[in-house]
Amino acid sequence: MTIVSHPLTHDQDLRRRAAAVIPNGMYGHQSTRAMPDGYPQFLARGEGGRIWDIDGNEYVDLMCSYGPIVLGHHHPKVEAAVRQQLALADCQNGPSPAMVELCELFVDRVDHADWAMLAKNGTDATTMCVTIARAGTGKRKVMVARGAYHGAAPWCTPNATGVTAEDRAHLVHYTFNDEQSVKAAVEQHGDDLAAIVVSPFKHDARFDQELVDPEWARMLRRVCDDTGAALILDDVRCGFRLAYGGSWEPIGVKPDLSAWSKAIANGYPLASVLGNDRFRDAASSIYVTGSFWFSAVSMVAGIATITALGEEDGLGSMERAGQRLRDGLDAQARAHGLVINQTGPVTMPLLTFAADREFERANLWAGVAAQHGTYVHPWHNWFTCAAHTDDDIDRALVGTEEAFARVRATFGAD
Amino acid sequence: MTIVSHPLTHDQDLRRRAAAVIPNGMYGHQSTRAMPDGYPQFLARGEGGRIWDIDGNEYVDLMCSYGPIVLGHHHPKVEAAVRQQLALADCQNGPSPAMVELCELFVDRVDHADWAMLAKNGTDATTMCVTIARAGTGKRKVMVARGAYHGAAPWCTPNATGVTAEDRAHLVHYTFNDEQSVKAAVEQHGDDLAAIVVSPFKHDARFDQELVDPEWARMLRRVCDDTGAALILDDVRCGFRLAYGGSWEPIGVKPDLSAWSKAIANGYPLASVLGNDRFRDAASSIYVTGSFWFSAVSMVAGIATITALGEEDGLGSMERAGQRLRDGLDAQARAHGLVINQTGPVTMPLLTFAADREFERANLWAGVAAQHGTYVHPWHNWFTCAAHTDDDIDRALVGTEEAFARVRATFGAD
Repeated sequence: MTIVSHPLTHDQDLRRRAAAVIPNGMYGHQSTRAMPDGYPQFLARGEGGRIWDIDGNEYVDLMCSYGPIVLGHHHPKVEAAVRQQLALADCQNGPSPAMVELCELFVDRVDHADWAMLAKNGTDATTMCVTIARAGTGKRKVMVARGAYHGAAPWCTPNATGVTAEDRAHLVHYTFNDEQSVKAAVEQHGDDLAAIVVSPFKHDARFDQELVDPEWARMLRRVCDDTGAALILDDVRCGFRLAYGGSWEPIGVKPDLSAWSKAIANGYPLASVLGNDRFRDAASSIYVTGSFWFSAVSMVAGIATITALGEEDGLGSMERAGQRLRDGLDAQARAHGLVINQTGPVTMPLLTFAADREFERANLWAGVAAQHGTYVHPWHNWFTCAAHTDDDIDRALVGTEEAFARVRATFGAD
Repeated sequence: MTIVSHPLTHDQDLRRRAAAVIPNGMYGHQSTRAMPDGYPQFLARGEGGRIWDIDGNEYVDLMCSYGPIVLGHHHPKVEAAVRQQLALADCQNGPSPAMVELCELFVDRVDHADWAMLAKNGTDATTMCVTIARAGTGKRKVMVARGAYHGAAPWCTPNATGVTAEDRAHLVHYTFNDEQSVKAAVEQHGDDLAAIVVSPFKHDARFDQELVDPEWARMLRRVCDDTGAALILDDVRCGFRLAYGGSWEPIGVKPDLSAWSKAIANGYPLASVLGNDRFRDAASSIYVTGSFWFSAVSMVAGIATITALGEEDGLGSMERAGQRLRDGLDAQARAHGLVINQTGPVTMPLLTFAADREFERANLWAGVAAQHGTYVHPWHNWFTCAAHTDDDIDRALVGTEEAFARVRATFGAD
């Protein structure tokens, strides 16, 4: 295989046009402005575990659209369900029967769930969880981990520009996996505590990932039981990449409410809130909606995705791909005399360089990898999908080998 | 044509299943719980100006999915664009070139727009407008009309259950079309005024609609110029049903920011914020995003929708259908000796009964119309679409004639 640094001519042209009609030329988590050179901003198509940019360059896709692509691009069963539903209708005056079937499927698969609600953004789902918790408890304070991402609405966006102090007046912070910080916050706000919001593991951008201490998770459950607060699991990013149910089922801790999105419909726009019977009346009492929340296409995609994940052992495939990638990267780094950290579950990998101060090695490494056909991210966790074959991973490792060599040549060993 | 009161057997079965796994069995604006008997909750398919429920009953669709269906169900050019894009990709690691093309098209068609941002919910768009206004002005107060709907996030949802006082701390209310209420609010909060949010006309649910007084709209523009506040037009519901550009272009009043959704992609999930150069830096300074905000399918649907609307004079078709409907309803009501009010633009009709106190005639009328194949709403404005033919409207009037007869028989003339 010949590997050449790839051209991004059409991409550059489009960026110039975009700069005229889009603030900053692009915004949000898919803006490549904060990423190193070598990344295309505009993409053309995807198939299985590979993607192509608009200049025709091919990549092994290890970001999977930042999570939504869980079975691989164009999974045949999902696409067939989508085509069939599109021929009938998508957005109508009411839902299709698929809404009931999908909610039944969620309740069947996720152990803490007695009911489900559907929406469009992960932020819709986390915001609904908080609103339901407040409606159900009659209390106001919401505990979130320092640095955790729970969406981009005024109450939670990581950049508070344009946000008022009041939007965050009732947020209380704790430290992930730290019992003392939770207890201190509860001591101060326990009387008015509506919810503790927690991620299945710590996956804050720009930090090494950290798995949850099961004892700590059980302690959160006890605190919620003692105070009456809702335990809210933000499974938007992790859902269906750690377990076939909720991400804390393997450790046996049941949240009251959970927020889902990203992977639940293999890329079709959908989010979900799942809850237990304790919060059913509260969920019934709030008013939330959206023009496209009851559209059928994303729902049939969700049914097909969740079904195929189970039938085809999608999680097993993701884990095999992730482990092969992790092993390969470890061997490559060692051979180059570079010290790296690989953290988090293998299905949601992240690699950092021990010697980095401001991601200088990671930026070079990821940019060179992109130029050589491996699409990873320098400081946001990656995602494997069920379509990643051994061949995909081996091809990805060709790009990362080039990248390690460049880091070694530029920064030396350490 | 034989008209029989239709069966909803499958619908009843599904409602029972839904009650087990969905709070209230259904939620949001498409829940039929608040509507009279006769409406199906679950729909099967749509074609042009007609829809079918899951029991096979056919309706002339005068709700158009509460706005999104503007060209008619399954418009061939929109569907062709969608199929073509689906074969390439939808949700990827970055946008497709369609994002730039769509933003260029918005800037070309909407006179106040120098740039565009895209999202998924109308609420995303109105919330972004407010955030951008605050970022750009450094001020906090946001004026909204009493009773106006601007979305379902904590700061604006019409049902404040689960919402804290702080979520609405900086909202200030005025009365639509009322100069004094605006001036009083400005007098009190002018120093800290970030924005005035306004609908193109008053279309609050459960009230007769009211067109905007152009003099009053110009007064709002002057107030914003004088105070430095942003004028935000919430065009989520009206956009492309009153004009081929923004809804206030016919009266010559340019907002600084406008929020769009519903009709812009003929039912595919998409929202947009358009803004002028004064707020470009502010728009560049905030952080907003969503997992599916950069998906390509809705964007190609948006391009095809906006293009077809212009090429096929979609607005002309909607107006002809709406006028034929209004004339027909007026004649029917007169013949039955019933006094009705028809308000708002003919493309977004609403009918109320002068003698109603709590929509008792409207509920009966709309329920009977539904049972006879005409899908309207008793207290939320309706929508015409470009696919409505004379035949569709004449068929709709068959259902409304049955409904007027029943109202007359039940309540007598007045």
